[in-house]
Amino acid sequence: MDLKKLRVNGKRLRNSLEEMAKIGATPGGGVQRLTLSAEDKKARGLFVNWLKEIDLACTVDEMGNIFGKRSGKNNHLPPVMSGSHIDSQPKGGRFDGILGVMGALEALRIIHDSGVETERPIITVDWTNEEGSRFAPAMVGSGVWAGKLERDWVYARTDIDGRTFGEELKTIGYMGKTSAESWPVHAYYEYHIEQGPILEKLGKTIGIPKGIVCLHWYDVYLEGTANQVGPTPMEGRNDALCAAADMILKVNALPTKMGGNMVATVGEIQNEPNSRNIIPDKVHFTVDIRSWDDDLALRAWDELKRDFLSIAKTRGCPIRIEETWRVGHAPFEEKLVRRIHDVAQELGYSNHVMVSGAGHDASYMSQVAPTAMIFVPSIGGRSHVEVENTRWEDCEAGANVLLHCILRSAMEE
Amino acid sequence: MDLKKLRVNGKRLRNSLEEMAKIGATPGGGVQRLTLSAEDKKARGLFVNWLKEIDLACTVDEMGNIFGKRSGKNNHLPPVMSGSHIDSQPKGGRFDGILGVMGALEALRIIHDSGVETERPIITVDWTNEEGSRFAPAMVGSGVWAGKLERDWVYARTDIDGRTFGEELKTIGYMGKTSAESWPVHAYYEYHIEQGPILEKLGKTIGIPKGIVCLHWYDVYLEGTANQVGPTPMEGRNDALCAAADMILKVNALPTKMGGNMVATVGEIQNEPNSRNIIPDKVHFTVDIRSWDDDLALRAWDELKRDFLSIAKTRGCPIRIEETWRVGHAPFEEKLVRRIHDVAQELGYSNHVMVSGAGHDASYMSQVAPTAMIFVPSIGGRSHVEVENTRWEDCEAGANVLLHCILRSAMEE
Repeated sequence: MDLKKLRVNGKRLRNSLEEMAKIGATPGGGVQRLTLSAEDKKARGLFVNWLKEIDLACTVDEMGNIFGKRSGKNNHLPPVMSGSHIDSQPKGGRFDGILGVMGALEALRIIHDSGVETERPIITVDWTNEEGSRFAPAMVGSGVWAGKLERDWVYARTDIDGRTFGEELKTIGYMGKTSAESWPVHAYYEYHIEQGPILEKLGKTIGIPKGIVCLHWYDVYLEGTANQVGPTPMEGRNDALCAAADMILKVNALPTKMGGNMVATVGEIQNEPNSRNIIPDKVHFTVDIRSWDDDLALRAWDELKRDFLSIAKTRGCPIRIEETWRVGHAPFEEKLVRRIHDVAQELGYSNHVMVSGAGHDASYMSQVAPTAMIFVPSIGGRSHVEVENTRWEDCEAGANVLLHCILRSAMEE
Repeated sequence: MDLKKLRVNGKRLRNSLEEMAKIGATPGGGVQRLTLSAEDKKARGLFVNWLKEIDLACTVDEMGNIFGKRSGKNNHLPPVMSGSHIDSQPKGGRFDGILGVMGALEALRIIHDSGVETERPIITVDWTNEEGSRFAPAMVGSGVWAGKLERDWVYARTDIDGRTFGEELKTIGYMGKTSAESWPVHAYYEYHIEQGPILEKLGKTIGIPKGIVCLHWYDVYLEGTANQVGPTPMEGRNDALCAAADMILKVNALPTKMGGNMVATVGEIQNEPNSRNIIPDKVHFTVDIRSWDDDLALRAWDELKRDFLSIAKTRGCPIRIEETWRVGHAPFEEKLVRRIHDVAQELGYSNHVMVSGAGHDASYMSQVAPTAMIFVPSIGGRSHVEVENTRWEDCEAGANVLLHCILRSAMEE
């Protein structure tokens, strides 16, 4: 059999995605499948059934990560792995995460159907709680597995109702006995929607991230002087919200000022007392800076901090800054990135080498195994919303690239 | 007896204010005496006892407004009235409202002690729910009494727990039988803290507002496009919070741009989804514009609206604007304003003619009776906060001015 001629079954892939989209379907056309919820449980059950249908050896570890393994000729060799996550954002979309799980499943179905015997075993995986929207932080399944997070610390995380991750994992019946501990991996591929507008804009089918940008989070706290707005002249006011507005615009202008492919965003703001006739005296806002160039991001923060201090002084609003979280950029394995490019070329799919602006389970995986990702276009660049969408032919194209990358890695002795 | 030599008893006034400050005292040194609460009830009880101690005829109307009347020689003549409110903001101060009630009480105590017989009756009043912080809107006691608000509409207002104004008024035992309907008033004086920094800055003891500024409220709603911040380049973003930041700074710069004694403030903002890694797609904020010059305030709004529309277009964020509330400026009765000035001069108190930037029960009263107000300095200009403060000698000075204004009006035939 000419392995090169293998292609995934696009219709079956679409059917599987549509079946999954029914679980937690929202009226707005998206899905809400929060981690460890009844919907997550139902989707996991369906996934496990599908794994069994193609005779994969199914295991669930103590983090609820689900693995489906197909043996190779040499089962002592480190396996090829591919997967993503089943959980979704609240009112999230029908592709984020699940496409990477269904894509790897479809690749394994085709490999199963074709009867190919690979050198190495192949494992598909659903990582628990990638989103982190019910239990913060995100990517804990892959994080514990990769040895970067503590299992018991994750078990103790609580949701908004005070229920712990550990209890809920037990409740849905997915606290396995196998230790969540990494084994040697030959190659990890994660297939995902882009979640941005670049591929669509460029008219390219396959995105090839060379890695994940760095991620720097800051928290800014401003103090003003609360007073009734009517009797307090403009002169001498210490309006914490005005100071914040000045700063928000500085954040927004930062990427242009610094150059490079940086993004900088204020997504969250709290204002107190938040009453229409009282001058704001307490404002908290967040800053998120991402860049492929860690140094550029640090220099940008230095500039921004200088601006913040100067604004705080001018406005008479004492400022406190927390440097909340910094993760350096994570380059993927060059050999695998090149392979994705080669496969896309050979299959005739237009493609574009880029960076991933968002974190993925591939972030943790890249710390313990050769890792790379495959992106397909997000319509309108929209993600984490109910209208999140990707064309079926693009879903199929990405799965074909994934299939051949898996095959090549799995054939390596 | 030489009436001109009468002075209030500053120590007794202070004692009364300190007794009242115990009711709803907060750990931070302020008071929390929300309208129709157990604390309001207790303070009302104390006030009524004090009215009875000096033989005032006490009535409570169907709005819970409490009146204490001292007869004059000619009880068919419209009375002189003075008062303010007992209720406070949540975590409010020890002077806002209560100073005007205790000041008028002290004036009546001195008049009572001296045995003076005035031509006209004198009535002191506690207006229900001036603050409007438990049941919106504000100033409903004086509003219904002045015929500007509907009693049953006010009864149906609910607090955050869903309890109605009417029920709670009954619960504390202050739903009187007398109709809340204005009678002819010869002069209404309201004594109040300034709630701003002007008198302190100028080193003046008595503030003489010539009236209350106009008050224009607007609500602005912006729409952006929510996207994950990482994968979404800066170019082409529709960030509703950045658009709001641009607009907040325009509001802040408006008074300088327009000239005149205007103030313009954004006190309230809501941001959605308010997540640090999602571009904001829904922002609501408020605009409060006040000026003595109604036309200037309207011209300022026209300018501002033009700026808002232009920013919304540039940022690609559709905007919706509500013109929520407009109240014209309320000039006080010139004769009474002049009288306050004359009395302050004669008593040797430095004084300053100004405007009131905040609304008061005097706003409604000025629509049905000759009205004026007396201000004393707020330390640091702070009000509606626990550190709200006024020097005891200033409290006494204001009460002396009030006493002699009441006497002069009450002696008029």
